[in-house]
Amino acid sequence: MTSLNDTLTQTEQHRSLLEEALRSLPLPIVPAFGSAGNLHAVEFVASGEKLATASAARVAELFPRTVAANAGEVLRAGQALAKAVTGKRVAVLFSGGPAPGGHNVVVGLKQMLGAGNTLLGVQGGPKGLLNGRMAPITDADIAVIRNTGGFDFLGTDRTKIKTAEQFAQVREVSVKHELDAIVIIGGDDSNTNAAVLAEELFANVHADGRGVQVIGVPKTIDGDLQLGELLPISFGFDTATRVYAELVGNILQDSRSSLKYWHFIKLMGRAASHVTLEVALQTKPAVTLISEEIAQRKQSLAEIIEQIAQTVVARAKKGIHHGVLLVPEGLIEFIPEMKALIEELNDGMAQHEAVLAALEGEEKRAFVTKSLSPEHEKLFASLPEYIQDMLLAERDSHGNLQLSLIPTEQLLIDMTKRRVREIADASGTKIPFATQNHFFGYEGRCGAPTLFDAAYTLNLGLTAGALLLAGKTGYMASVGDIFSGGVPLAIPLAGLLDVERRHGSEAVVIEKALVEIDAPAMQYFVSRREAWAQDDLFASPGPRQLWGPVASQLPISVALNRKSQSLAFQFGTDKA
Amino acid sequence: MTSLNDTLTQTEQHRSLLEEALRSLPLPIVPAFGSAGNLHAVEFVASGEKLATASAARVAELFPRTVAANAGEVLRAGQALAKAVTGKRVAVLFSGGPAPGGHNVVVGLKQMLGAGNTLLGVQGGPKGLLNGRMAPITDADIAVIRNTGGFDFLGTDRTKIKTAEQFAQVREVSVKHELDAIVIIGGDDSNTNAAVLAEELFANVHADGRGVQVIGVPKTIDGDLQLGELLPISFGFDTATRVYAELVGNILQDSRSSLKYWHFIKLMGRAASHVTLEVALQTKPAVTLISEEIAQRKQSLAEIIEQIAQTVVARAKKGIHHGVLLVPEGLIEFIPEMKALIEELNDGMAQHEAVLAALEGEEKRAFVTKSLSPEHEKLFASLPEYIQDMLLAERDSHGNLQLSLIPTEQLLIDMTKRRVREIADASGTKIPFATQNHFFGYEGRCGAPTLFDAAYTLNLGLTAGALLLAGKTGYMASVGDIFSGGVPLAIPLAGLLDVERRHGSEAVVIEKALVEIDAPAMQYFVSRREAWAQDDLFASPGPRQLWGPVASQLPISVALNRKSQSLAFQFGTDKA
Repeated sequence: MTSLNDTLTQTEQHRSLLEEALRSLPLPIVPAFGSAGNLHAVEFVASGEKLATASAARVAELFPRTVAANAGEVLRAGQALAKAVTGKRVAVLFSGGPAPGGHNVVVGLKQMLGAGNTLLGVQGGPKGLLNGRMAPITDADIAVIRNTGGFDFLGTDRTKIKTAEQFAQVREVSVKHELDAIVIIGGDDSNTNAAVLAEELFANVHADGRGVQVIGVPKTIDGDLQLGELLPISFGFDTATRVYAELVGNILQDSRSSLKYWHFIKLMGRAASHVTLEVALQTKPAVTLISEEIAQRKQSLAEIIEQIAQTVVARAKKGIHHGVLLVPEGLIEFIPEMKALIEELNDGMAQHEAVLAALEGEEKRAFVTKSLSPEHEKLFASLPEYIQDMLLAERDSHGNLQLSLIPTEQLLIDMTKRRVREIADASGTKIPFATQNHFFGYEGRCGAPTLFDAAYTLNLGLTAGALLLAGKTGYMASVGDIFSGGVPLAIPLAGLLDVERRHGSEAVVIEKALVEIDAPAMQYFVSRREAWAQDDLFASPGPRQLWGPVASQLPISVALNRKSQSLAFQFGTDKA
Repeated sequence: MTSLNDTLTQTEQHRSLLEEALRSLPLPIVPAFGSAGNLHAVEFVASGEKLATASAARVAELFPRTVAANAGEVLRAGQALAKAVTGKRVAVLFSGGPAPGGHNVVVGLKQMLGAGNTLLGVQGGPKGLLNGRMAPITDADIAVIRNTGGFDFLGTDRTKIKTAEQFAQVREVSVKHELDAIVIIGGDDSNTNAAVLAEELFANVHADGRGVQVIGVPKTIDGDLQLGELLPISFGFDTATRVYAELVGNILQDSRSSLKYWHFIKLMGRAASHVTLEVALQTKPAVTLISEEIAQRKQSLAEIIEQIAQTVVARAKKGIHHGVLLVPEGLIEFIPEMKALIEELNDGMAQHEAVLAALEGEEKRAFVTKSLSPEHEKLFASLPEYIQDMLLAERDSHGNLQLSLIPTEQLLIDMTKRRVREIADASGTKIPFATQNHFFGYEGRCGAPTLFDAAYTLNLGLTAGALLLAGKTGYMASVGDIFSGGVPLAIPLAGLLDVERRHGSEAVVIEKALVEIDAPAMQYFVSRREAWAQDDLFASPGPRQLWGPVASQLPISVALNRKSQSLAFQFGTDKA
């Protein structure tokens, strides 16, 4: 008999009870690819839908070969491929921040490529690609990483591939490792990388004139890479928001149990508020700030604080001295006056760099304050001192402030406290307002994927593999029809590109999808939030389940925006 | 057909998909009480085991009636009670911080009392008891709260009941509401409250000479209320540590995916390190600090920092620039020199109160520094400025520092950074050491209970109810034999009490159970931690499951310390 000590030591290295059980959890496969036991590659055929941005003309100049080949046409899976494709060598890499489900993309890719082709894992993201750090992925590796969270099988990084020197490095690595294809699993920036590489490596990489195919896979917990029916959501968003929603739901219950704290919670998600909106829909807290709405309404910081303070006061009048507020990570830059203040500060600090270097604390603040325009001087003066100091801190190499370092949740707490005290003093009443702050981000990027993310990513991996076997390049893999079986799609990357002018030169980007104020998810939130503010109507979604009656759910915002009448997804022929 | 909007609105007020599904999740019942459909009360009989602390003689003087009645004897469930007991009016309240499973205690209590007795829910904890805020709990309430997390059905607070005036209030409320019994669901302080009230209300509360029975139920996520086989663990510990372990596991995966951060994570748990030890056993991070061991070894802060820095450096030499460190909330007061420093500061600040009130910042620090003994002067000078300021901040009404406000995780980061830089400079190498900090606490106190906590608390509630029906008072309900069916136990509260001198007067307390260095759980941790420090051997336990193959697990530390060879618990006759 094994002792418990030994049993525990056997759980080391990703062998917890859950991880072991997840490895054998069956996942549905979309009908186009056959069945798990009998996979087949497919042809991709024109769907009739074409994509182009306002920059299409310039994109056609910059990406002549992929644009000519793909013509902006969205493809969908057709018949089974007539002839088996073998001998391909494919490199796969993670790029950017991790997101749950990434490992299953690799699993799907390996399964579609089958024994006749070679899959190489690139270690450490784009930087690893530049350095040629890669090794074959075995069936044993696949058995280990199946359905597990994290990108830790290969690691990731954020290197952008855009210089001539880097392109030369990728060519060299491609030749050295005899690569036929590269699959980049990443977000908007990484898929821009993929588009650029697809063009750069379109042909003439190898001695015989062959190029290297490049396929992107849409990853980001932020949810800012989405495209209507063609790409209802990037992978990882469902799991990350479910992790955060459990925590927020737990804290909501704590707030009503302990009866004495307001919790101000900042949620990761970069610029867009998708994560915050989804978590709000799942948990229904008293106050939720949506950056895009604040920008649209051109709200001032004082107006936002007033709105929060009035909710605190209204609840206090009913004897409710607790609550939860959600704030998206990117809020500050969506408040028009804050954005303008920061820009003015950036300019002023660049101008007076030498003088400022010699000043500190009070003197530095005084010097900067008097250099500001009157309205910004007032705004700056209204901020807590530690925020003033942060706004006066060193800029990055582009002269910009690292906004992500600003503790928005603490700023809102301090300013709301001040305002609530003013209201209390003016009315001669006592208004209890004790607070706690939280920031949830890293907690959700590497959790075990939900059933949706696990199945979605497996099928994304199968789709990416099928695109390669069908000879495609310059596409992003996607899976459409997620409520009715699922269909593999290929989105032409060049059709997503915008060309912007940044710091005097051209930059190619995929625009981040922001929360749309008139979309059904936001409209539903707007219809209920007043009721949530007035009384505790919250729900606690709890830990995501991989088995049992509530294991199959989609993000609420995705279901609403896609006008589904249910939260259930369906891949394959079995109802999820 | 209902629209998704309507479906979503129906999930408000604790009606998420998970909460709804959990309400009908069947739970096992210990054999002594029959079956869920056919519950019966029991006699409680002497187990042969007696409890007494070193203060037993003084306790017998202070608690003459309960000591005489209960004689320190642990009771266990015997035969079914011959005659049905009806007409009892029982008040139940939550006391102290919330813990998952509290609602199920109320469910079990209500089920055992049955339709023939009345259960009243006290709103807002001990304060609500003093104010007589209570209302009958209905079967409809029970159906709603079953298996849900939080204490939000009734709310809680931390009022200590110890003055003559408060006792008079409880008597008055007991008479007014015709109470026969009070059940207090709480931790060590709250069960001390229960012991005191049991004695105080032993007899002569009502006109006919009857007293009010008082029963305690052992709650705390901190795990510091435990007593070997008699009380292997308090309820809530399993769920809270599982919530934290998921987050820590996710962050471990993130650290190895992103390949660039050390995450320093502080975990709730007051003085004891049980929570931190359990989370370490579940996740196996690079560094875990256990306060009790640091106290035993009389480690200095500099030694702790050196140990962390050496691990950072050793991993960096292998190219590993990431890791996770766990630190228990209560660390600071277990470092002997920090404890002595704080005591010296407390004394000094009380002595020089008037002078210090006029000083600020640098001047204040300078004044205090020169008043310290030489070794403490050096220690104080080694601390980051913001920690010095916190140590010089206002004391509470007892002249003590609020240690919980000190950001231990940030202190460790800052001091480790300094030390790693010194080592790097001395060796002329670069040692990357980027960090993130976290504090997990509120996230775990109100989560949906694990199957263990859900079943354990239901049976604790049944046991509390059975003790009342059997006419007992002055006991804490417990369930023993958790690996082999479960047996209801009654622990005599007076047998747990110690009498301490605090600030010149006597204080009755239940000593907190700390981590024992030579207990199997700690020894297993010690046997593996060096390996965990050297390489990434972590596991990710993932979200706790309520259905499926991994739903039934006990805390690892409980299983080890109870010398179980399995992590499975068993209540009732079905294998869990």
